[in-house]
Amino acid sequence: MRQLQPDSIIPLYVQLKDIIKSDIEAGIIKPGQKIPTEFELCEMYSISRRTVRTAISELIEEGLLDRKQGKGTFITTPKIQAKFGPSVLGFTEICKLNNLRPSSKLVEQRQISATSKLAEALNVPVNSSLVAIRRIMLADEVPVMMDYAVFTEAYNFLLQENMDNRSLYAAIKAKRDVSFMRQRKSIQTVFADSAQAQYLEIPVGYPLLLSQGTVVSSTMEIIHYGEQHIVGDKFVLYI
Amino acid sequence: MRQLQPDSIIPLYVQLKDIIKSDIEAGIIKPGQKIPTEFELCEMYSISRRTVRTAISELIEEGLLDRKQGKGTFITTPKIQAKFGPSVLGFTEICKLNNLRPSSKLVEQRQISATSKLAEALNVPVNSSLVAIRRIMLADEVPVMMDYAVFTEAYNFLLQENMDNRSLYAAIKAKRDVSFMRQRKSIQTVFADSAQAQYLEIPVGYPLLLSQGTVVSSTMEIIHYGEQHIVGDKFVLYI
Repeated sequence: MRQLQPDSIIPLYVQLKDIIKSDIEAGIIKPGQKIPTEFELCEMYSISRRTVRTAISELIEEGLLDRKQGKGTFITTPKIQAKFGPSVLGFTEICKLNNLRPSSKLVEQRQISATSKLAEALNVPVNSSLVAIRRIMLADEVPVMMDYAVFTEAYNFLLQENMDNRSLYAAIKAKRDVSFMRQRKSIQTVFADSAQAQYLEIPVGYPLLLSQGTVVSSTMEIIHYGEQHIVGDKFVLYI
Repeated sequence: MRQLQPDSIIPLYVQLKDIIKSDIEAGIIKPGQKIPTEFELCEMYSISRRTVRTAISELIEEGLLDRKQGKGTFITTPKIQAKFGPSVLGFTEICKLNNLRPSSKLVEQRQISATSKLAEALNVPVNSSLVAIRRIMLADEVPVMMDYAVFTEAYNFLLQENMDNRSLYAAIKAKRDVSFMRQRKSIQTVFADSAQAQYLEIPVGYPLLLSQGTVVSSTMEIIHYGEQHIVGDKFVLYI
């Protein structure tokens, strides 16, 4: 263990921060791991509680540490970074940008009738025939979201495709020359019901980010309505 | 109580949906109120469980009802709708658009030194003098977010202003001719710590949407860094 230099012009709390930071970078302490208590850090480095507190609270503010009520202070597990721009990034690309291995499990792939909400979103008559595809999306084998995509009849060919563990957008691009653009989109927090909890391997009532919107082609033709239930604390969305 | 018309060409489940919808619109059943159970609705209207289920699940999908695990089905409490565009809407304007009365409570208004994170966000040297203002924002007297705004020294005059229950952007506009534009911004889910829980009158661990970003002037001069801890399930953000 490195020692702090009380005679240095670098403040002690900055020295402590630097040690913790370099331990994280070197992988000596890993994401999700608990760090010593304030008291233990005081003892380890022979410094005051105030010095330890300043270092810890700055590392929390910088997002490197995470204080869990009544449990201690932990190395932050990095969140998946996803950009929410006008162009639509598929799950496969988001994972690639975050150095994660994408995979998916098919839950539902069937013809449905348009409810009034879907009819409005897709601009088709109520009870029109639509194609619904529901999948669990996994990053490095961990379920991180449920994806529900509903297409108009023009995409009926998707019912014949094997959609298990396959990129939906890649399957479409193999048949159609389209680009995907996002229209008006909303985000809100909801709580997992029992089905969502089971599929996403989280407790019932766990917070999910619900993102809803319509995806159109570059010629503004509606391609699909989309709904994602995202395990909220596993993502950071950039707008 | 209205009766369903079994001989009508309108399907029974649509008739039931219409009755529930008009009861909500007429204020006969109010947001947050529980509706009768499936069984009770079957009895009330002499219809099958399947008819009741179809009506309820469409109303849930349309966002009018909300099923709470193990508690029943409730009339949805409308969420506050906020637009997340390039122009920055203050809390006052968001409330006006939602027909809610905005108010705020001042928690902190003081000079602070720039941490490395704030220095980077505001493009000033570490330890520069900054102005921090932390407030609880209430809509119709209900706390819905904590707002933390950190300004550069150019906004030192804010330390002299009475900021309790006053629009921050109005206070700035009274002194400076600026418009507010949002730069890169992120959204993620975090869990309330004990201070946040106390201020926002929610349980510790309750999900919050953390929105972080920098607000600049129309000439791209940095005005402030901003952080909002939003009571997640009270808002819908449109992008």
